Amino acid sequence: MYRTHTCGELRLEHVGQTVTLSGWVQRSRDKGFMMWLDLRDRYGITQLIFDENKSTKELFELARSLGREFVVQIKGEVIERVSKNDKIPTGDIEIQVAELTVLNQSKLPPFTIDDDTDGGDDLRMQYRYLDLRRKPVQQNIIFRSNLAIEARKHLAGEGFIEVETPFLIKSTPEGARDFVVPSRMNEGQFYALPQSPQTFKQLLMVSGLDKYFQIVKCFRDEDLRADRQPEFTQIDCEMAFVTQEDILNTFEGLTKHLFKSVINVTLADFPRMNYDEAMRLYGSDKPDIRFGMQFVELNDLAKGHGFGVFDNAELIVGICAEGQAANFSNKDIKKLTEWMQRPQIGAKGLVYIKLEEGGTIRSSIGKFYTDEQLKTWADKFGAKEGDMLLILSGEEEKTRKQLNELRLEMGNRMGLRDPKVFKPLWVVDFPLLEWDEDSERFHAMHHPFTSPKKADVDRMLSGDHETMKSLRADAYDLVINGVEIGGGSIRIHDRALQSRNFDLLGFTKEEAEAQFGFLMGAFEYGAPPHGGIAFGFDRLCAVMNGVNSIRDFIAFPKNNQGRDMMIDAPSIIDQEQLDELRLRLVDIKK
Amino acid sequence: MYRTHTCGELRLEHVGQTVTLSGWVQRSRDKGFMMWLDLRDRYGITQLIFDENKSTKELFELARSLGREFVVQIKGEVIERVSKNDKIPTGDIEIQVAELTVLNQSKLPPFTIDDDTDGGDDLRMQYRYLDLRRKPVQQNIIFRSNLAIEARKHLAGEGFIEVETPFLIKSTPEGARDFVVPSRMNEGQFYALPQSPQTFKQLLMVSGLDKYFQIVKCFRDEDLRADRQPEFTQIDCEMAFVTQEDILNTFEGLTKHLFKSVINVTLADFPRMNYDEAMRLYGSDKPDIRFGMQFVELNDLAKGHGFGVFDNAELIVGICAEGQAANFSNKDIKKLTEWMQRPQIGAKGLVYIKLEEGGTIRSSIGKFYTDEQLKTWADKFGAKEGDMLLILSGEEEKTRKQLNELRLEMGNRMGLRDPKVFKPLWVVDFPLLEWDEDSERFHAMHHPFTSPKKADVDRMLSGDHETMKSLRADAYDLVINGVEIGGGSIRIHDRALQSRNFDLLGFTKEEAEAQFGFLMGAFEYGAPPHGGIAFGFDRLCAVMNGVNSIRDFIAFPKNNQGRDMMIDAPSIIDQEQLDELRLRLVDIKK
Repeated sequence: MYRTHTCGELRLEHVGQTVTLSGWVQRSRDKGFMMWLDLRDRYGITQLIFDENKSTKELFELARSLGREFVVQIKGEVIERVSKNDKIPTGDIEIQVAELTVLNQSKLPPFTIDDDTDGGDDLRMQYRYLDLRRKPVQQNIIFRSNLAIEARKHLAGEGFIEVETPFLIKSTPEGARDFVVPSRMNEGQFYALPQSPQTFKQLLMVSGLDKYFQIVKCFRDEDLRADRQPEFTQIDCEMAFVTQEDILNTFEGLTKHLFKSVINVTLADFPRMNYDEAMRLYGSDKPDIRFGMQFVELNDLAKGHGFGVFDNAELIVGICAEGQAANFSNKDIKKLTEWMQRPQIGAKGLVYIKLEEGGTIRSSIGKFYTDEQLKTWADKFGAKEGDMLLILSGEEEKTRKQLNELRLEMGNRMGLRDPKVFKPLWVVDFPLLEWDEDSERFHAMHHPFTSPKKADVDRMLSGDHETMKSLRADAYDLVINGVEIGGGSIRIHDRALQSRNFDLLGFTKEEAEAQFGFLMGAFEYGAPPHGGIAFGFDRLCAVMNGVNSIRDFIAFPKNNQGRDMMIDAPSIIDQEQLDELRLRLVDIKK
Repeated sequence: MYRTHTCGELRLEHVGQTVTLSGWVQRSRDKGFMMWLDLRDRYGITQLIFDENKSTKELFELARSLGREFVVQIKGEVIERVSKNDKIPTGDIEIQVAELTVLNQSKLPPFTIDDDTDGGDDLRMQYRYLDLRRKPVQQNIIFRSNLAIEARKHLAGEGFIEVETPFLIKSTPEGARDFVVPSRMNEGQFYALPQSPQTFKQLLMVSGLDKYFQIVKCFRDEDLRADRQPEFTQIDCEMAFVTQEDILNTFEGLTKHLFKSVINVTLADFPRMNYDEAMRLYGSDKPDIRFGMQFVELNDLAKGHGFGVFDNAELIVGICAEGQAANFSNKDIKKLTEWMQRPQIGAKGLVYIKLEEGGTIRSSIGKFYTDEQLKTWADKFGAKEGDMLLILSGEEEKTRKQLNELRLEMGNRMGLRDPKVFKPLWVVDFPLLEWDEDSERFHAMHHPFTSPKKADVDRMLSGDHETMKSLRADAYDLVINGVEIGGGSIRIHDRALQSRNFDLLGFTKEEAEAQFGFLMGAFEYGAPPHGGIAFGFDRLCAVMNGVNSIRDFIAFPKNNQGRDMMIDAPSIIDQEQLDELRLRLVDIKK
């Protein structure tokens, strides 16, 4: 062992001991006859002292020659510091160095290895091994490891078995795009990397394994947004002989355990909201309920007063920004309106009604409505003097989505989205199917294995097209602070019902059989009722730390082009490899 | 919840309670007015009783209609059995069923769901979800889960951090064949699936993470033997600021913990043997030391007596099979000789010397050697009356390998390889490089990142070709009962030395830079001394259970053609998928 202690553990009680430490040179201060050097490892920083009067010239000169990030081993005596540093746990002591060995040298790093670095994103990704020396990044990776340990501990304690499912599986064009892997031994055929272990975990339930989990990598070949990665990690779970209620309780328990054990936050029981209500009150199936500002609909009050925009709108809906009447000048509102009109959101306009202190009402629609009328609107919002109403109108679905964006933005501006406050929410009763106007077909709202509610099974088996739109599923999402952390459903465990679902989703019998015949076959041999959930592990890490980017919690992430900048992958491969796989690259226009 | 209890937990103390159980119908016995039914789940079996006098006709008839593997839910009272079954933990009680619900039906399974099944390999693989209902298979999967839990618990307790390394990495033609993954977003380029996280874990050491582990899937596109899988699992570990001694101690600790906590076996301290000694005494770098039968060399005694086969042999070497003189007839020895002459082993012949009770010596070489001479041979073996010597000769390396096979076979025949006895062994001091006569180049005995021993560094940097063959590495294998369970090494952490190693392995500067430039670059920024080990997790499961096949411990294994028989993968993919990847399948002769 190159050390007797780490750089984080020495205290006053160790004074007088001779110790050996190894680590990296963080920085040094040279006072001519005295020199101090901060030695760093993942456990902390320990100050080393070199004293011209107490050490050989060679030792002193060697110490002076050390650069940042040199790796050294030292031996010396722990002594009490003259001027203590109460900012670090080892701040009471330092090491009077007697021996110094340079274990490795270092070139000057391309950015500073400090909590706040001067390195840009690309540079830090290229030298990720140096970025990972920075304490905040290292802490994120350690956080992730701790979270996984606690997740496994809790689930094992609840009787769950971790089962590894295969990575080389079969491509199914349904859903997102698969990464495929050419098979050398099976000419012309391909494996696919799993988008999730969905069918395997269901088969494990058919096997009677009853409580399954796995912390597992999943793969999606999607065009990447800032918060997506081509490979990501799920806490994947499935249970047999359970109802939705059992699953919600089990995984509410897991979530509470993780928050308590890892960040010492005690979560209250999670409220539940059905999908329709979430859409009506927040315009989103993942509402951030750290703050109110619920939607209020105004069709009854606003229509029929000669304001064409409202009269022709399918929906008029708004939010009340408490105490903001005085904070938003006309210019601010103009800017906010422009923000709403950006193509990403696409609102046509934004109506405001300020209820100023003293009773004055200022609004952009004063010529169509009397103050009296606008007061009845304010009453509907429960608004009071000093508040500001913000109102949108237009096609129903689009308008709700736009108002959701506005609500979140106002929440940000008003400081209502404290990253240290955690408000979990179960969103339940999702629709089973979603009608896609463009492709004129149904999509599975959750996935094709999701069960309709028991009460809807007969309607699903025999109903007409319109009936299908009204089916509700035993599907649920866990939302924390407006972020979808997990989602799941009770699954179909009956061949006929599964087959009907594939029909509705536009599969031919042949396609359904070729892709999922093994699963429907399994349903014929005593499949138990079952259901499950999957947590986005990367995202859970991010939310628990109050940050947006999952990349901070991945040791070696890829950039938005799916590239690993450090190892420079993907890359071209040898002709011989292509030959063995019987593949040729061709120029096909996309 | 579909149950109040599992099928494994009810005891006499529950008598009188009304319970709800769910599970599978294992079997039923119908006595006309009484019917018993075994209900099974993963926790056990509970007997249900239906009594014509105590239940409705409907209930009785419904019970009678149930087939094997039907999934049912029952409600009833726990009663004491009249005739108890002491073979199962629930054998004291049964359930007087009051309500019965069929949750799902089952077709007759293609093989019996029993400890001993009548299903052949292929059928069981195709219906793996049914095979997994069988208790021995289910127990293997649960064993694996427990082993992983204990491995993680122990390593986390030792301060190791589990870090997920990427699955989409870069192809490097060195070593085994990669599975590659075409990248849609990076035209003409491919990812590779990792054969191990080797370079990433080394970079984590450069990052200062200091103690890393991961239980992780790895991938090799090799022609499959019975005990290989294209995807397999490793307990992958790496430490910084350590010597070989530290690593051996740390992972000897892990191994002892796993054996104690999972199968309650206390392992004594592991002996160590260097590679040369292992090859000399056992003809193998993974000797099974549950039994002796060490090699004894006879060149000094056997040469120069006119027996041309020995006179011309590079090596004459044998083993002593204790007490086997009487057990092997001439016919048996003939058969054994033929077994040794099969192409898989390729021995030319087999010389035996029987030291029969009473002093008679019978041998196949009596006409070349006097009994007196053969007695000096026997003395060298420490053989006594009743023993049998088995001797091979020929080219040194080949002969040792053949004798290793013979020794293991004799160990099997003599019952010396008890699967309940565990004898771990560290094999150390492996050669760094291996000269390959065919390709006229060096191969890395462990892998290209392995460090030579400190004493050999200078010789490696400046020595000639012959010197390279004599370099020893800080490389080690953990062998248990003749199976290689783990292997690792101290790594190179110096750019110049790594570069020299790539030179020796036949890399051009450009190739080394293109493939491993990121690692050599990292060595320039303060790489600490480091080393690690990887355990074959599947194999560890098998060895701990005293079986040979790793497939038994994999939930969804692939067959020898790399196929998943259940989901029928790999398979052809859509033209659209090929187009998006700009790939064409072509007919290239291998």
